Amino acid sequence: MTTDFGSAEPFVGLVKAQILGRHPGASIVDLTHDLAAFETEAAAFWIERSFRYFPSGSVHVVVVDPGVGTDRRILAVLLDGHLLLAPDNGVLGPIAAMPGALVHAFRDGHLSGLALPEPSATFHGRDLFGPLAGELAAGRVRLQDLGRSCDDWVRATWAGPVVETNRIRGRVIIVDRFGNCFSNIDGKLLKDSEMKSVHFGVHELPLARTYGDHPAGTGIALVNAFGVLEAACVAGRADDRLTLVLGAPVEVRLHGPEPGWT
Amino acid sequence: MTTDFGSAEPFVGLVKAQILGRHPGASIVDLTHDLAAFETEAAAFWIERSFRYFPSGSVHVVVVDPGVGTDRRILAVLLDGHLLLAPDNGVLGPIAAMPGALVHAFRDGHLSGLALPEPSATFHGRDLFGPLAGELAAGRVRLQDLGRSCDDWVRATWAGPVVETNRIRGRVIIVDRFGNCFSNIDGKLLKDSEMKSVHFGVHELPLARTYGDHPAGTGIALVNAFGVLEAACVAGRADDRLTLVLGAPVEVRLHGPEPGWT
Amino acid sequence: MTTDFGSAEPFVGLVKAQILGRHPGASIVDLTHDLAAFETEAAAFWIERSFRYFPSGSVHVVVVDPGVGTDRRILAVLLDGHLLLAPDNGVLGPIAAMPGALVHAFRDGHLSGLALPEPSATFHGRDLFGPLAGELAAGRVRLQDLGRSCDDWVRATWAGPVVETNRIRGRVIIVDRFGNCFSNIDGKLLKDSEMKSVHFGVHELPLARTYGDHPAGTGIALVNAFGVLEAACVAGRADDRLTLVLGAPVEVRLHGPEPGWT
Repeated sequence: MTTDFGSAEPFVGLVKAQILGRHPGASIVDLTHDLAAFETEAAAFWIERSFRYFPSGSVHVVVVDPGVGTDRRILAVLLDGHLLLAPDNGVLGPIAAMPGALVHAFRDGHLSGLALPEPSATFHGRDLFGPLAGELAAGRVRLQDLGRSCDDWVRATWAGPVVETNRIRGRVIIVDRFGNCFSNIDGKLLKDSEMKSVHFGVHELPLARTYGDHPAGTGIALVNAFGVLEAACVAGRADDRLTLVLGAPVEVRLHGPEPGWT
Repeated sequence: MTTDFGSAEPFVGLVKAQILGRHPGASIVDLTHDLAAFETEAAAFWIERSFRYFPSGSVHVVVVDPGVGTDRRILAVLLDGHLLLAPDNGVLGPIAAMPGALVHAFRDGHLSGLALPEPSATFHGRDLFGPLAGELAAGRVRLQDLGRSCDDWVRATWAGPVVETNRIRGRVIIVDRFGNCFSNIDGKLLKDSEMKSVHFGVHELPLARTYGDHPAGTGIALVNAFGVLEAACVAGRADDRLTLVLGAPVEVRLHGPEPGWT
Repeated sequence: MTTDFGSAEPFVGLVKAQILGRHPGASIVDLTHDLAAFETEAAAFWIERSFRYFPSGSVHVVVVDPGVGTDRRILAVLLDGHLLLAPDNGVLGPIAAMPGALVHAFRDGHLSGLALPEPSATFHGRDLFGPLAGELAAGRVRLQDLGRSCDDWVRATWAGPVVETNRIRGRVIIVDRFGNCFSNIDGKLLKDSEMKSVHFGVHELPLARTYGDHPAGTGIALVNAFGVLEAACVAGRADDRLTLVLGAPVEVRLHGPEPGWT
């Protein structure tokens, strides 16, 4: 489960109650419930970078849903044995775009044949996603029961990194609990031999392999465990040390083409 | 489980350890642990509005217990296949008052026959509620083993809404993560045809069905997924937009009797 | 599981995903994930005072790991049927020192025979501790597979209480959600007949059995449910009432030897 429900109210527990009511043996894992309310970019990042670490056969429920109660569609995506369920608002965009992904879309009313409760207008996590995830996990509902295959699902609504001849430009998209600042620049875009320098905000940072490679207090850049370029600070907080916030510019300068070529 | 234990310390985990030690197959769901310390009204609201979403046969443990270590009683309530366990301080008052509820009350010492550990003076969640819930879930202890039937349990210690001829007056009892402001006015008290206007604090609000029915930024009132009248703000926070806090007055004005009748 | 991972990011969920992938039937309990980042003393306290409340056969994973990605060792400790796994940084020091504890130490590379994934440099919770805990819980890996027995593990890096002839001096090591202030003075060091007075910061406090024994607002000292001397405030917060913070001095004055003896 990945939501923006927080933990102060029983929203998450009620979704779980509905899952367990329909699939009593379910093992339910919380990915996070502390996403900023209605913020889809971080949700999309985390689920895309996380779902493959779960066992094949998992059902992933992502509820970050500013359009609850409107006529927005729901997506079900099947990829490599993982079934993902979320509102069609971009949160599953990166996964739906992967080769081999099967994408179905449907509206609330479609579920009337599945013995789900009449959903409230404002809490589809409990009244729709929970029961449906339970039925899917139990094997009583399958992808083909969920609307029809489609390819007009909502793409990511946020900007990716910009790759230019001499540089790659991105921005900070996550500041984690430890103050590490994740950029939206995938490590796959980076080749050591081509990189001239790495900049987070106004700071040029040395590229490191892990947190312990430099003295305490040093700001460093590394490709982190989620595969993106990150600013970190050895034994400290990079956000404080380097004055970085969400949206701060990130730039990787590349060795340009040979001067004679221009 | 519903408690005011928070998640910074291992209090909740230790209760679960005791449940699993006595009923290894238990599926344990957190309703919330972030209730304000010792605050019974919100706890009572959430458990009353939530327990029926769990499978029949569930054991619900509610530990909001300012009287831990004193001679306060413990209640066990059986209703529609749900068994609820909590200190006798009003937190189960609304459920105990429902038709068909069987209510038993007992004191700590009563449990000496059940092979429970000697409870510490200050952590009955771990030493009493957890083990007892495990025994109940495993079926080795039953309601009739828990003290005697009683009807002098503690009623709610807070004020309900006031229903008058021309209006219903209540107050804000919960401000949730999204800024939605729950009143203590049950939707069942409201009939569309009788309602003249809805007021939260100094604001008169239009009555809506769901969050998406009005333009972004609009303050609206609706009967929410928990069945009570709520102030919300489309794509925003009602508490900020309408300057509402816990305890703020809520008023529903009704079409009064025909003038000729007065 | 006991970590400093917090709940805002999916770090904990990914460790659980890896455990469940290798031991699908696992019941996973969160002790806490909200330890101060990289803070080992509180982690050591909580796991030492908590692990025995879990069923025998439990695997305890403690990840508070400022040295992730360096050559630091990992410890596995077996004691009374509990297997504990953590970086060798003092967090398991108090348990490893107990009579009967079997302590093995190993480095990351040792695990190559266990079909674990190649660990990332920065997230050993997901890539090493999770998979290894799953293998241990499933019984496919045993203590003797994990490096060799050792007794040069890292001792606690923090100061214990100082026992003198006429007094015991300690300090506040935990301020919990309720404002209770835990000292590092074990209740076993205290005998009622020897105690003259108890001081937290500048306040002398009466010794009580539980929170309800004095009028509301009274500052009291008691041996708490975790076995250490604590300052509490009846129906209030001791940290506010007594102006106590982490590190505040705690002193128990003892009846000294008879005057004639000196």
